[in-house]
Amino acid sequence: MSDFRSLLETFENQFPDRDYQIEIVAPEFTSVCPRTGQPDFGTMTITYTPDKKCVELKSLKFYLHSFRNQGIFYEHVTNTILDDLAAVVEPRWMKIVAAFNARGGMTETVTAKYTAAI
Amino acid sequence: MSDFRSLLETFENQFPDRDYQIEIVAPEFTSVCPRTGQPDFGTMTITYTPDKKCVELKSLKFYLHSFRNQGIFYEHVTNTILDDLAAVVEPRWMKIVAAFNARGGMTETVTAKYTAAI
Amino acid sequence: MSDFRSLLETFENQFPDRDYQIEIVAPEFTSVCPRTGQPDFGTMTITYTPDKKCVELKSLKFYLHSFRNQGIFYEHVTNTILDDLAAVVEPRWMKIVAAFNARGGMTETVTAKYTAAI
Amino acid sequence: MSDFRSLLETFENQFPDRDYQIEIVAPEFTSVCPRTGQPDFGTMTITYTPDKKCVELKSLKFYLHSFRNQGIFYEHVTNTILDDLAAVVEPRWMKIVAAFNARGGMTETVTAKYTAAI
Amino acid sequence: MSDFRSLLETFENQFPDRDYQIEIVAPEFTSVCPRTGQPDFGTMTITYTPDKKCVELKSLKFYLHSFRNQGIFYEHVTNTILDDLAAVVEPRWMKIVAAFNARGGMTETVTAKYTAAI
Amino acid sequence: MSDFRSLLETFENQFPDRDYQIEIVAPEFTSVCPRTGQPDFGTMTITYTPDKKCVELKSLKFYLHSFRNQGIFYEHVTNTILDDLAAVVEPRWMKIVAAFNARGGMTETVTAKYTAAI
Amino acid sequence: MSDFRSLLETFENQFPDRDYQIEIVAPEFTSVCPRTGQPDFGTMTITYTPDKKCVELKSLKFYLHSFRNQGIFYEHVTNTILDDLAAVVEPRWMKIVAAFNARGGMTETVTAKYTAAI
Amino acid sequence: MSDFRSLLETFENQFPDRDYQIEIVAPEFTSVCPRTGQPDFGTMTITYTPDKKCVELKSLKFYLHSFRNQGIFYEHVTNTILDDLAAVVEPRWMKIVAAFNARGGMTETVTAKYTAAI
Amino acid sequence: MSDFRSLLETFENQFPDRDYQIEIVAPEFTSVCPRTGQPDFGTMTITYTPDKKCVELKSLKFYLHSFRNQGIFYEHVTNTILDDLAAVVEPRWMKIVAAFNARGGMTETVTAKYTAAI
Amino acid sequence: MSDFRSLLETFENQFPDRDYQIEIVAPEFTSVCPRTGQPDFGTMTITYTPDKKCVELKSLKFYLHSFRNQGIFYEHVTNTILDDLAAVVEPRWMKIVAAFNARGGMTETVTAKYTAAI
Repeated sequence: MSDFRSLLETFENQFPDRDYQIEIVAPEFTSVCPRTGQPDFGTMTITYTPDKKCVELKSLKFYLHSFRNQGIFYEHVTNTILDDLAAVVEPRWMKIVAAFNARGGMTETVTAKYTAAI
Repeated sequence: MSDFRSLLETFENQFPDRDYQIEIVAPEFTSVCPRTGQPDFGTMTITYTPDKKCVELKSLKFYLHSFRNQGIFYEHVTNTILDDLAAVVEPRWMKIVAAFNARGGMTETVTAKYTAAI
Repeated sequence: MSDFRSLLETFENQFPDRDYQIEIVAPEFTSVCPRTGQPDFGTMTITYTPDKKCVELKSLKFYLHSFRNQGIFYEHVTNTILDDLAAVVEPRWMKIVAAFNARGGMTETVTAKYTAAI
Repeated sequence: MSDFRSLLETFENQFPDRDYQIEIVAPEFTSVCPRTGQPDFGTMTITYTPDKKCVELKSLKFYLHSFRNQGIFYEHVTNTILDDLAAVVEPRWMKIVAAFNARGGMTETVTAKYTAAI
Repeated sequence: MSDFRSLLETFENQFPDRDYQIEIVAPEFTSVCPRTGQPDFGTMTITYTPDKKCVELKSLKFYLHSFRNQGIFYEHVTNTILDDLAAVVEPRWMKIVAAFNARGGMTETVTAKYTAAI
Repeated sequence: MSDFRSLLETFENQFPDRDYQIEIVAPEFTSVCPRTGQPDFGTMTITYTPDKKCVELKSLKFYLHSFRNQGIFYEHVTNTILDDLAAVVEPRWMKIVAAFNARGGMTETVTAKYTAAI
Repeated sequence: MSDFRSLLETFENQFPDRDYQIEIVAPEFTSVCPRTGQPDFGTMTITYTPDKKCVELKSLKFYLHSFRNQGIFYEHVTNTILDDLAAVVEPRWMKIVAAFNARGGMTETVTAKYTAAI
Repeated sequence: MSDFRSLLETFENQFPDRDYQIEIVAPEFTSVCPRTGQPDFGTMTITYTPDKKCVELKSLKFYLHSFRNQGIFYEHVTNTILDDLAAVVEPRWMKIVAAFNARGGMTETVTAKYTAAI
Repeated sequence: MSDFRSLLETFENQFPDRDYQIEIVAPEFTSVCPRTGQPDFGTMTITYTPDKKCVELKSLKFYLHSFRNQGIFYEHVTNTILDDLAAVVEPRWMKIVAAFNARGGMTETVTAKYTAAI
Repeated sequence: MSDFRSLLETFENQFPDRDYQIEIVAPEFTSVCPRTGQPDFGTMTITYTPDKKCVELKSLKFYLHSFRNQGIFYEHVTNTILDDLAAVVEPRWMKIVAAFNARGGMTETVTAKYTAAI
């Protein structure tokens, strides 16, 4: 759980009887490498099926920008954002694909999924 | 159900014995954000298997253009168009993928499906 | 069944013991809109597994060009070509994807399949 | 001169001693065809060298959106926007490239330039 | 000069004091090879600076479609269209780039220009 | 079986306990059309899981180049190469995708698979 | 001068009063490396302004295919084809760009021009 | 002049007798909008001909990252970076192209040049 | 097992309760052909689901660079790297796709997978 | 001047009366960073007009591979290769564009030219 979870807002899903899917691509994600202090950049792709709530886009933007000066590893930030979003939005399922820019000539992409308990 | 459903026209499917698929890509969809009053833009991709009726393309164009000055959310407009089309065309199944242009540096795509009751 | 079915020629499949696949992409298809009289353009992609016969490419070209001055709807021409080809080639299965150029800012793709009765 | 010229705002160019260039690409332009009443869509690319003033981006967005329900020809709207911008921004030179989406299978691009009198 | 020149219509250029440029891309051009009788396909790109007249787009579409069943060589049809358009539109200059699809594994592009006598 | 099968050489698979996959893309394949005598060009993509042997790349290159002056149909050459390679390499499974360049405005791709008997 | 020059045929340029340009792209050129005996592959792009004659496309295809089993260096074949074409077509100017596929991880492109003496 | 100019380091150009060109593309530039406080993102492309000094890449990276939390306009930051780099590197000429990501559906690119006085 | 396995370092997976996936693309892999002594180049794509450990990126970079002057075949190096990484990282599953640059006009891609015993 | 200049071989230009151009793209260049000891990767594009000699491609490959384990800066290696090639090939003019892969999120391209003294 991050310090920024409370920034996330939701609105009511008006079509709860239908299993539909929302995909949000946020290509302007940036945080800081906890070892070198240098900035990291990447694209966050969030896909989910809403249950009773949808994430409000502007609040999501502010939430993601909150990591701008945080020192945090690739694997950690991906799973943390998934935890925050799943806790607030309570989706039927959710997936995050975090594709980070090349460092040392290599790119890394982290993919994590959440499924609601039945 | 939108105010524009009655604009949609159909013609008879001449090959009802075959389960075939029609995909229509409409990249010039525009509506208005109900909060800011600013225009939204996106591409609507409609895929379906016709039963007894096919949607007439020109009427579909007029129907989609009717949202031009309507204030409506992404999730709402996608599901509303699916409801209107499924009610008029009565397809065996239908899918709408609504890919909206970037706002605040983020794009959103909404995907909804309809399947006929047996 | 079109007036042009007799133009299609076949040659013997020399490998009938193997289930293999042939895909033919014909991007220069043109016919005429039966309402407006204006030309339509599209790409026909034909995929099939031959049984005893393969379609001869040159005869297929002449067959497809025969629609050049015919007034016929997208859905109709796609299913008609599938009927003609399936009747003449007698494949194990066949699929036609007919992708038509944009009209009124929208493109339409029709996909139809044929499977041989066992 | 359009009815919307007064929407355009400027801010002071802080580097007037340097001949530099600003390019703005606005891909969400839409107006209405004065003959058919159907919407047109296109991308406006505005390039200029500022003299004493730069165009303020948000006001430019509102200005361009004002044509949303105006019936106006391609050639006319391009030259009118150039006239409005040149009058308000008073650049050393300015170019507008207006690339409109396909209609009837054909696309049209209109390019117009303005140079300040010496 | 072709038999179809009289199909071309013009409208008045409302900005004759400015040297601006109009580019029209027509990717659905088709004629017939005078030797083999088989159809040819290509893209016509017409660029010009209007003097007193602009070519009307719908009449241009009908004019280009008139070559649909004409047997004519690549080089001939390109120069003929340039002659027709220059005679009717009387532009300050005009260029036609005719890019034909591959035949025998080779593509051919013909480029011709017209400049008004002073 | 072609006349060139004996050109193919193999080397021992050093990891026979693992089911892994090798894909070879050979975009410079050329043979001759048996009807017209004109050259055909295409890309051969060979994918397989080795059992005890892997195909040696240089010998494969020489083998494929042997078809350079052979008159042979698309469907025939694809299945013949599959037969030759399967006989010499004895893979667990193998697939050949032969994508030929456009002729008469149409491209053809032939896909054939081999699976070892258990 | 190659042994194949006599294969090239021409037809009369019907627009000799206009300086226009013809570009032919032939992506299926192949010859043989004179050192290794292995095939080379490349794309020949021929651009010229005709004077009294245009090159006939089918004869050009046969001419280019004649190099199929000739051992000849990149630089040599490019200049030889330019010499042959310039001698037969007698253009106002002509350019050949010969782009060869990678060998040893490196690609080579040879560009040569001819201008008629005045 | 920015507060970060002193971060820039140089090394000696070992080939001062030759007029050659260095281009550096830095796609991970981010600063803050002075009005909204929201982050801006863009790509800085710096091209120059060195005189006696070349810019050291690692120091350039740290220098560019210094703008991460600075509120500054597009036009201002581009010209300021050009001033800083020209003052420290003393090149024969230098150009900066700053391409910013879309905001409000529009992208802006600022291009500024510096030439050494003779 | 290579001589370089000991260069690989790991860090603790902080989310062991979740089955998530890490993909690393390393496009700057180079080794030496054991027959010709000439360098080979390729892209290594490593995908895995961590159990208790994640591979540390910088140590992976040094490990991959260790093959720079090693003579080793495509198939061998791919399986060896998979063995080394699986032994050190002990993932739930892992896949390596090794795509090598063209040699003799042909590219080869080797794909190998590892699954943990239950 | 590098230690490897003597590896470069030439052959006689058979068309010295024509000013033509040869472009060689070598995308598999690698050397070592003299500071960090880590490998650098890039693409060398060499363009020149031969006078009496052309560079022999295989010797050029061996020459470029000689830098594989040399510690040398981007700017230095580009100018050194230009010096070596110009000295051995004695071209009428020559240009080298050295495009290096991203390091620290930034790419650098160095372009240097040589012109023969008259």
